[in-house]
Amino acid sequence: MDKVQTSIRTANTPAVLVDLDIARRNIERFQAYAETHGLKVRPHIKTHKLPAIAEMQLRAGAIGITCQKVSEAQAMVDGSPEIRDVLITYNILGTEKLDHLAALARKVTLSVVADNETVIDGLSEKFASEPAPLTVLVECNTGADRCGVPTPEAAAALAQRIANAPGLKFGGLMTYPPAGGAGAVEAFMTRAKALIEASGIAVPVITSGGTPSMMDAAEAPVTTEYRPGTYVYNDRSLVSRGVCGWDDCALTVLATVVSVPSANRAIIDAGSKTQTSDLLGLTGYGHVLGRDDIAIDQLSEEHGRLVSQGPIDLKVGDKLRIVPNHACVVTNMVDAVHIVENGAISAVWPVTARGRIV
Amino acid sequence: MDKVQTSIRTANTPAVLVDLDIARRNIERFQAYAETHGLKVRPHIKTHKLPAIAEMQLRAGAIGITCQKVSEAQAMVDGSPEIRDVLITYNILGTEKLDHLAALARKVTLSVVADNETVIDGLSEKFASEPAPLTVLVECNTGADRCGVPTPEAAAALAQRIANAPGLKFGGLMTYPPAGGAGAVEAFMTRAKALIEASGIAVPVITSGGTPSMMDAAEAPVTTEYRPGTYVYNDRSLVSRGVCGWDDCALTVLATVVSVPSANRAIIDAGSKTQTSDLLGLTGYGHVLGRDDIAIDQLSEEHGRLVSQGPIDLKVGDKLRIVPNHACVVTNMVDAVHIVENGAISAVWPVTARGRIV
Repeated sequence: MDKVQTSIRTANTPAVLVDLDIARRNIERFQAYAETHGLKVRPHIKTHKLPAIAEMQLRAGAIGITCQKVSEAQAMVDGSPEIRDVLITYNILGTEKLDHLAALARKVTLSVVADNETVIDGLSEKFASEPAPLTVLVECNTGADRCGVPTPEAAAALAQRIANAPGLKFGGLMTYPPAGGAGAVEAFMTRAKALIEASGIAVPVITSGGTPSMMDAAEAPVTTEYRPGTYVYNDRSLVSRGVCGWDDCALTVLATVVSVPSANRAIIDAGSKTQTSDLLGLTGYGHVLGRDDIAIDQLSEEHGRLVSQGPIDLKVGDKLRIVPNHACVVTNMVDAVHIVENGAISAVWPVTARGRIV
Repeated sequence: MDKVQTSIRTANTPAVLVDLDIARRNIERFQAYAETHGLKVRPHIKTHKLPAIAEMQLRAGAIGITCQKVSEAQAMVDGSPEIRDVLITYNILGTEKLDHLAALARKVTLSVVADNETVIDGLSEKFASEPAPLTVLVECNTGADRCGVPTPEAAAALAQRIANAPGLKFGGLMTYPPAGGAGAVEAFMTRAKALIEASGIAVPVITSGGTPSMMDAAEAPVTTEYRPGTYVYNDRSLVSRGVCGWDDCALTVLATVVSVPSANRAIIDAGSKTQTSDLLGLTGYGHVLGRDDIAIDQLSEEHGRLVSQGPIDLKVGDKLRIVPNHACVVTNMVDAVHIVENGAISAVWPVTARGRIV
């Protein structure tokens, strides 16, 4: 982590800036909400991919972290001795991944999820000969229609299979619900929990997630744990949903105007290689801070096109800060982020778990 | 470059595969077209970001390479002694970039573009004290409405400014046209060339680009040089435009089915962190080779959702190969690509110029 002290005005662009003061405030805000409602917090690190920010989350009261891929978990655990409890919310398959998973399970408290028998059987085969059983939660589909068993009955059947499988321990239920899905989570999980407990198996954890609905997490009181990700940085998608304001956005893209080819068009040096093409249902690609009149209507890889109804009033060399549509995917584009404290760049942090896709 | 010999069937996923035999055929196809029509080829390396593939292009007859950013050019030049001629098709601004540009100009034949006075003046200030002048082309807007001067008259004015600027040499005209824009290129460039030559300045190079229209490049006979990028790999966008077939797609994403939660839905382990969210005007995210009945209708970061009208007929653990919508941006997601030769993985190549955004 190079220590630097650079004015944002003189930084080489494009650059991804992370304001630690804002991130800390975001972390504390949700932690306070969760504690009020008796919920444990297990942040998803996909948003920052940084051991140092995971440490901020743990010190604020999080019980552990969530990762999506085994290689991501490895990078985070190797990056911080404070990360001792990891949930990987993914169906894990294949010799190479299972070997890495077993190595990780010997280092930290580890749990994973499964939504099918093939995955459970593969985990069991691997962990039957490991020193300790692996904790496996059942992933449930509560309306997002991605992974997950479709019914409480199917969840109960898989819980039974896990409980009976050599090398495994049933850990509970997991879901990634659609926005506004607290009611669906409550209904599914209450029924699944009752079915599983009726067969004599305890359900120690019921974990839900998603930043858009995090301030309604308590509306599903059956849940014991919540896994917000984007909340640490926030983004244009969350501002548009009314979840936060621009001042709560910790991650911004610093860009330079490289061309003003016409009166209402300007081009910046941050395209899809920095901002990504994620739309998340929005129109346009990011919000230029302080310039509500400008839309970013087109990205190519290294160019962002800004258009305005009236004169765009920008000149070549001007620097702009952009709140991207989706913060998590921006983090994954860059080898390093520039840390902002007290309004200046104080450090450059390599994005430890960037590009960990396996 | 790790030498491996792995069956595609057993590779850890997701993985980006590059079939060198197909890439070589694609390179030779356009080189032959260009030679027939007296066009020089200067491939854009944004698609592969690999010195070894740039070498294949140069050995096939390319006169040099095109890069979009200074750091990208540095990585490519450092990666191969065969890369001796680089055009950076970007307005370059700022002390740090200009310092790197000057260092690069001492190593290789270098040219850049400019579409405004601020950029020209900045380049001149830097190169006035360098041992040799920098070649600068004027970027022209022939309809893509990104960067570029709007008229031949404006191009002529900037050519004059470059010709008069200490440390600079006027190199010609450059455009990135819209698809099907050969007529517009011919009209703009013919007029601009005449204006510039009338003022006593030679126009040695007129360079155009873009894979979608590359087989019509000769319809703008005023151009001397063409800069195709995606042609080396091809992708779903180009297949949909009728530019190539699936067998011409050198880059594929290898993915594993991790969940089959319902009869017509399956989830793979390649989401937007591998495939990106680029749509390029298409519906859905990529084409599953051999399965025309399947659509990839949703990507989250680590999940791709496959849907079919009838039974999806996939099981957990199945491996699929996907032609992404846009090859260039996929290359930028991964630290390494898996090289395929004779149907098996023969090597793993780090993506040398990945993430070089400045």
